Amino acid sequence: MTYANPDRRETISRLLNPKSIAVIGASSDFGKVNGRPLKHLIEKGYAGRILPVNPKYEEIAGLVCYPSIEALPEAADLAIIALPAAHVCDCVEKLGRKGIRTAVIFSSGFGEMGDEGKVLEKRLAETAKAARVILLGPNCLGFVNAFDNVYATFSQYADGETGAGPIAFVTQSGAFGTAIAALVRQRGLGLGYFLNTGNQADLSFAELMMAIVEDPRIKVAAGYLEGITDGDALVRLARKCQELGKPLILTKVGRMSSGARAAASHTGALAVSDAVFDAVVRQYGVLRARNEEQMLDMLEVFCQPRRACGSGLGIATQSGGAGVMMADRAEEVGLTVPELGAATQARLAAVMPAFGAAGNPVDVTGQFVARPELLTESVVSLLDDPDIDVAIVWLQLMTAHVEPLLGIFREIQQRTVKPFLVCWVAAPDAAIKGLRAADIPVYTAGERAVEAAAALARYGMQRKTSEDAVSPSGSPACPGTTGSGMQPTVEASSWLREAGIPMAHARLAESEDHAVALWRDSARPVALKIESPDIPHKTEIDGVILNIDDEAGIRSGYRALIERARTAMPDARLSGVLVQEMAEGHVELVIGVQRDPVFGMIVMVGFGGILVEVLKDVTFRRAPFDRSEAYSMLDDLRMSRILDGVRGKPAVDREAISLLLFRLSHWAAAMEPRLSELDLNPVLVGEAGPSVVDCVMILEE
Amino acid sequence: MTYANPDRRETISRLLNPKSIAVIGASSDFGKVNGRPLKHLIEKGYAGRILPVNPKYEEIAGLVCYPSIEALPEAADLAIIALPAAHVCDCVEKLGRKGIRTAVIFSSGFGEMGDEGKVLEKRLAETAKAARVILLGPNCLGFVNAFDNVYATFSQYADGETGAGPIAFVTQSGAFGTAIAALVRQRGLGLGYFLNTGNQADLSFAELMMAIVEDPRIKVAAGYLEGITDGDALVRLARKCQELGKPLILTKVGRMSSGARAAASHTGALAVSDAVFDAVVRQYGVLRARNEEQMLDMLEVFCQPRRACGSGLGIATQSGGAGVMMADRAEEVGLTVPELGAATQARLAAVMPAFGAAGNPVDVTGQFVARPELLTESVVSLLDDPDIDVAIVWLQLMTAHVEPLLGIFREIQQRTVKPFLVCWVAAPDAAIKGLRAADIPVYTAGERAVEAAAALARYGMQRKTSEDAVSPSGSPACPGTTGSGMQPTVEASSWLREAGIPMAHARLAESEDHAVALWRDSARPVALKIESPDIPHKTEIDGVILNIDDEAGIRSGYRALIERARTAMPDARLSGVLVQEMAEGHVELVIGVQRDPVFGMIVMVGFGGILVEVLKDVTFRRAPFDRSEAYSMLDDLRMSRILDGVRGKPAVDREAISLLLFRLSHWAAAMEPRLSELDLNPVLVGEAGPSVVDCVMILEE
Repeated sequence: MTYANPDRRETISRLLNPKSIAVIGASSDFGKVNGRPLKHLIEKGYAGRILPVNPKYEEIAGLVCYPSIEALPEAADLAIIALPAAHVCDCVEKLGRKGIRTAVIFSSGFGEMGDEGKVLEKRLAETAKAARVILLGPNCLGFVNAFDNVYATFSQYADGETGAGPIAFVTQSGAFGTAIAALVRQRGLGLGYFLNTGNQADLSFAELMMAIVEDPRIKVAAGYLEGITDGDALVRLARKCQELGKPLILTKVGRMSSGARAAASHTGALAVSDAVFDAVVRQYGVLRARNEEQMLDMLEVFCQPRRACGSGLGIATQSGGAGVMMADRAEEVGLTVPELGAATQARLAAVMPAFGAAGNPVDVTGQFVARPELLTESVVSLLDDPDIDVAIVWLQLMTAHVEPLLGIFREIQQRTVKPFLVCWVAAPDAAIKGLRAADIPVYTAGERAVEAAAALARYGMQRKTSEDAVSPSGSPACPGTTGSGMQPTVEASSWLREAGIPMAHARLAESEDHAVALWRDSARPVALKIESPDIPHKTEIDGVILNIDDEAGIRSGYRALIERARTAMPDARLSGVLVQEMAEGHVELVIGVQRDPVFGMIVMVGFGGILVEVLKDVTFRRAPFDRSEAYSMLDDLRMSRILDGVRGKPAVDREAISLLLFRLSHWAAAMEPRLSELDLNPVLVGEAGPSVVDCVMILEE
Repeated sequence: MTYANPDRRETISRLLNPKSIAVIGASSDFGKVNGRPLKHLIEKGYAGRILPVNPKYEEIAGLVCYPSIEALPEAADLAIIALPAAHVCDCVEKLGRKGIRTAVIFSSGFGEMGDEGKVLEKRLAETAKAARVILLGPNCLGFVNAFDNVYATFSQYADGETGAGPIAFVTQSGAFGTAIAALVRQRGLGLGYFLNTGNQADLSFAELMMAIVEDPRIKVAAGYLEGITDGDALVRLARKCQELGKPLILTKVGRMSSGARAAASHTGALAVSDAVFDAVVRQYGVLRARNEEQMLDMLEVFCQPRRACGSGLGIATQSGGAGVMMADRAEEVGLTVPELGAATQARLAAVMPAFGAAGNPVDVTGQFVARPELLTESVVSLLDDPDIDVAIVWLQLMTAHVEPLLGIFREIQQRTVKPFLVCWVAAPDAAIKGLRAADIPVYTAGERAVEAAAALARYGMQRKTSEDAVSPSGSPACPGTTGSGMQPTVEASSWLREAGIPMAHARLAESEDHAVALWRDSARPVALKIESPDIPHKTEIDGVILNIDDEAGIRSGYRALIERARTAMPDARLSGVLVQEMAEGHVELVIGVQRDPVFGMIVMVGFGGILVEVLKDVTFRRAPFDRSEAYSMLDDLRMSRILDGVRGKPAVDREAISLLLFRLSHWAAAMEPRLSELDLNPVLVGEAGPSVVDCVMILEE
């Protein structure tokens, strides 16, 4: 059976804010997994009806306990299932019959437990679908909706203070997620929602986050991921967050190969290449935090309402050395530390006559203890400077001066509109609490404050992803061929040329004489290349001869290539030899399209030759994308300076390369049903722009 | 006047542990800079005599206050000077006359305050030398010797608990240093010494650290640096620490250009290239911490007595995701996460039957709450595995289980000898305190624990720097020439060839006919290169023609080079044209020697061509060094895989390149008085080994 999406959405809302909750397999032992949700719901003051189900009890903690699902007095909005795995499917069926439409399944013993568990999980998903029950889990520790005191969880997090706040946090890991939730509490930031997806037999990370991020009480979305399967859903979520103006901060583990090994043994989720994941989520405006500390640091800065409009960082510091360290880090993470304008310098000189021309960082020394205006005026002047978009104030200890300092910071806040962060090393607790109470983000290490400021700047400067990148006119939908497998170079080139990709001119010679004629016709030096549907990598069989410009060379070259191919691959079908005009260019790129199992068509660009092999200096975007996104790909490359001309070579035209990438992305998107792989390698870029010298295109039916 | 070093050393000891302290310009206001040392000395129970000096008082806090230095009843071991800058020189003279041999100068207004201040500081240094007074400062906040309750400081650090411990900490920054000292206290680690060098008019960072690191109560040395001037002293200190088996952990600010700008405005210290600093301190076994958090993380792991013997990391985790994250980070920072041996797997399977083959990370889940042996046996098994050198245990919260967990960790400690670290995210305070009390390092973030483990591994695996690297036999001391400036290529080549450097064969042709004769003599293709003492960069004037193998080519080439040189640089003295046999090699290196103002002769190696220009993929060592140090340089290069053969090219002989670097380092060290600069660029490396194709050598008288 099927249900329409609006229904599903409404049902998910009921799951997240139920008027009544049945706890299947409830225990009177509040220390146990099946007792803890009862404890939390009661203690935290859940206002709805709590309906324990367990034939062993008649009541638990004063609540009527029902012997079975059938015996329940109503179709509860939500059921919590804390039964052994073997009984869960049966239970879900009964929920469906009772008209209970949502369930949180704590039980483990499913997909995470080998092949048998996977079979059981598949049956569970099918059962739930048939019974029209939406599932969170299994193998999850449930969720918290702190706004409405819904504690459908056995997480340790619920044992402490859990005041509601502006953060929506969804985690695929129970243990790590609980740790992060506890860190949010330690920081005095508030979680509005805390959801653990578990095995995602039904509800996934993206669908859950989509359901809560629209809540107006939520200002920031944070997610912890171990793997994803539905890239489209994640992209839709990221776009929704952009639309809402709410930052989406993601931590995903599994960057390296040993991590991937550990991940493979830990989760069944599809392993997407981390480089692709990273590039694609950034493309759609996601802020990626490398670990839980960085996530918390970002949450803190985005929980306060001010946003940065640029990358200029002003630093006021009590220690010159700390200023140097922060300026260094700023440069590493994409901020600038601008020299200050004359007006700002004059204002600073007026408060700090002894210091002469005051630079950035501004060294306020420790004298502000005696002269508070030193600090106030320095920071206000910094923030008033047109080149400064965000400021950091660094200080340390000051145990005896917390109150006056809090006053200074509140005054700065009143007199300015741009964001500023405080880094207070070895801060007294009262200082940290006081600043957070005033909505001023506070850090205890300088480099971490800089990284948070960088996230703020990145977020402020990001271009909104255009909802539908405009397709370049004249881009063909799909070549007419019905073939599959590797396509003949001449045909593949002509399709790409039609899409506006600058392909080097090549024709197929089916005989030695034909090759000579084609060379004469081109009237310039040519390359000869073996052509066969069975030989994707021509150079591996020595199947390319460059720069021939005489008839004897063409003839001997033709024969040599056919001979080499027959020797190296006797069974290969030989179509002939390509006669291609020599392309020119001093920069060698590799460009490609791959079909990612998670995100679909992905366009790659990087530097070719030794650089792609040893440095892996490549970047990715999800197709299609617009020209400025294409342009930004070139900035991603670590060696991008090569494009500006090095060692006496002229700069190449970045716009022309961007146009190629842009057109390719639209062609690839249109080809999604059929394109399996495309390699443009090498692409030579000279003063005349890029020219694709070789291409391998693989289609499927 | 001069004094012998042993005297100086003894005097420094007296400064650090004085039997009596005079406080010049003492105040009865214990909140003031000139009152705070009195307060600290009294409150912390300094056992020596405290002698305030100030004509305004007859007594302060029950201590007799003397009207003048002359009036003091004894020559105190130490004087603290808290006077305005203008009075300091006079005061130091009086100290000398009184026989007081050491002084800590709090006063600012010296080198940090522009040219006038620099003049005053120079006078101070001269005055002190003449008066035979050793100085700490000026512009410093003094020092603490916590073992003997010597608080010659006005640092806020002294306001709190200051129990003595195994760490010696010397800082060039007062404010940042105080912050770090406070963080050490927050962590419950103990500072034995805390010294602030200030402007280093006399005592420098290295000399001070050298004086305290030998104290047997000190186990770890930590330093915060903003700049250094005496590289030799730092190298001696690093070697001393290696000899003593005490880790030396350094944080130095000023990695990037904006940081360097800030540093330049902040400190007068010589700005050494950070890349050279980094390479040289690592060469001598220093552990560099990138910021104060990493320094603290390293201090924590080195304060416990266990050391790692290799890089194998074992991970036991309550969260699979945290395990993945730590495994990722491990790979990034040079650790391995080995798969476990069969015996270990069997042991793990015995405690965790449900989990089948147990990998590394070991996912112990949360079940150890019910079954403590799960955790104990997992970690003990990991540490018993021969491929594991250090382990990390990850867990979170567990507020209700702190005591049993502490018991588990103590049991693990008793049953093992290898180091293990605990990462306890959102840990209850009691957990952190309990672990530290048991000498078990504890972290609250997984990646930071991994970085600390990596430092432990790096320290354990480091080769001791050989006290005197053996000079290769036959290495010449110094060429006989007395010339200065750029040396003729043929002569420079012959000196280097004598030192065992494989120089491509080149001879100087002084006429066209001579060039033809030299080409005939070599009987192979040659390159022609303009030779002039005024043209160091031949390619810039198009002064190189490659691969000529016919008489007409030699003749026209010769004429063309002379013509180009005359056109481009009419005033250049032309010596003729070099005729050089074409060298072969598919790997292009640049090798050089530079005289660093701080560290002396520095040997550099990197990949040439576009790579050196865009990637700056180079590394450095201080000369001389031994062959294994030379070999390690090649591993430093990010693109080192090129040496192993990429894109079908054969591997090159790393030993042969190392031999070149080793010999060059000894030649450079011997040439230190005269060599100003040497560029070997390019060095082509082929199957026959390296060949230096071009060299520019600049000598000075």
